[in-house]
Amino acid sequence: MNVAIVGLGLIGGSLAKTFSAHGHRVYGMDKNPQTMEQALQDGAVADVLDDVRMAHCDLVLICLYPQKTVDYILEKQQVFAGDTVVLDVCGVKEFVCREIEPVAAERGFTFVGAHPMAGRELSGYRASMDNLFHHASMILTPSANTDSNIINKLVNLFYSLEFRKVVVATPQRHDEIIAITSQLAHIVSNCYVKSPTAQDFGGFSAGSFKDLTRVAKLNEEMWTDLFSKNRPNLLRELDIFLENLQRYRDALAQEDDTELCALLRQGREIKEALRP
Amino acid sequence: MNVAIVGLGLIGGSLAKTFSAHGHRVYGMDKNPQTMEQALQDGAVADVLDDVRMAHCDLVLICLYPQKTVDYILEKQQVFAGDTVVLDVCGVKEFVCREIEPVAAERGFTFVGAHPMAGRELSGYRASMDNLFHHASMILTPSANTDSNIINKLVNLFYSLEFRKVVVATPQRHDEIIAITSQLAHIVSNCYVKSPTAQDFGGFSAGSFKDLTRVAKLNEEMWTDLFSKNRPNLLRELDIFLENLQRYRDALAQEDDTELCALLRQGREIKEALRP
Repeated sequence: MNVAIVGLGLIGGSLAKTFSAHGHRVYGMDKNPQTMEQALQDGAVADVLDDVRMAHCDLVLICLYPQKTVDYILEKQQVFAGDTVVLDVCGVKEFVCREIEPVAAERGFTFVGAHPMAGRELSGYRASMDNLFHHASMILTPSANTDSNIINKLVNLFYSLEFRKVVVATPQRHDEIIAITSQLAHIVSNCYVKSPTAQDFGGFSAGSFKDLTRVAKLNEEMWTDLFSKNRPNLLRELDIFLENLQRYRDALAQEDDTELCALLRQGREIKEALRP
Repeated sequence: MNVAIVGLGLIGGSLAKTFSAHGHRVYGMDKNPQTMEQALQDGAVADVLDDVRMAHCDLVLICLYPQKTVDYILEKQQVFAGDTVVLDVCGVKEFVCREIEPVAAERGFTFVGAHPMAGRELSGYRASMDNLFHHASMILTPSANTDSNIINKLVNLFYSLEFRKVVVATPQRHDEIIAITSQLAHIVSNCYVKSPTAQDFGGFSAGSFKDLTRVAKLNEEMWTDLFSKNRPNLLRELDIFLENLQRYRDALAQEDDTELCALLRQGREIKEALRP
């Protein structure tokens, strides 16, 4: 299969390496010439992507931040052939699908939102790996009009690339879930480290602190773009969290240990009931 | 060395197994007769602890919840010999040291607060292990009057039991740090799972959610006791966290992406500057 990959960062670079390692022909492009050169040298991409080559690719993967993803597809809409399947891989899906699906319908190419759920605390091509997606989930968010044969082919393709699970969901459902499973966790983690007391706990081990703040080291520009494109869902989750946390705060401040214990019991029971 | 251990839960049971494995003679006691029997059968304790034996122990370790720790030591204050060193191992130190040190001074025994920083998401004797403290830190909080020879002996003793690090701190410093490195993390984690959206994210992987909520499954009675005995420190940290989190919330609600990005950058920079 001929695959075009636009943007060779952590995700795009890892996808390039994964597709190449599985025998596909990958054309790649990155705005950074050094990244481009390194990807060619590594064999992650077979050749540099241009518009002529893109028109002949079976699959085009846009691996850019959300806003840039939309800008790029709009700019190139006339380049994609009628039988090309265009996927984006950014972490919000409703915004991207809403902007792109009408254009795809008009131009006759197929667009499917996708979100490979894997990451590292490092970013950029240098952090990319040909096994980043081993045992990862891939979420696909086709529209109601997407040809089911194309969806089936994509599902099989990603399983063949050794993803552990491929899930089909609506863009709306994806964005609702991602707000709590990932986005709010990044905000809480990033916020938690700001306590002055956290700046020096030399000698004290801090397992729960480390777990809680693992994802505090984030790429703020990418995440601001992701958060702003999922504002209502994320704001709702943030408000639920703040409201719940205020209950613990009030119980503690009012020395109401019965209430504090009840709040903790409720959280423990909910956690125990979650599927692992 | 003859060692008395009162309370054979996760920590007491693991200490009993650790001391026994290192050739010390351990007398143990637990309110649960089945636990007592099992600990004898395992060889975690050599014999049942009683007041006569306690009077002949070099070291007495109280492994109970904070309030019960204080109650027990007050009840047994006449049993401890003048050369006995009594340690407690609960997770708050100022409360325990404040209540016990005057009594120890009056009765002539030595009391030192201690906090072995290791745990599991399981509790009770059944979860105890003879290697729970391998590579763990031990915090000791002696008073200004504690004989430095005794402190040195304790430091060497815990290193001989294969603790990775033994740190001496004031009870106040211990409690300030523990509020952010452990206590608030447990509250945040326990609170985070309460979002209705978090109850079913079937098929979506959720690495950051899992890390953030690892310690949500807690023993609510023990933690309520710990939190209530460290109320001012924990409340201060909780208020700092709520205030900081409100900033992210406001930036998001007001669509101020410049501010949101600045908040995330600040968190990222703080996290990067933390010693690992």
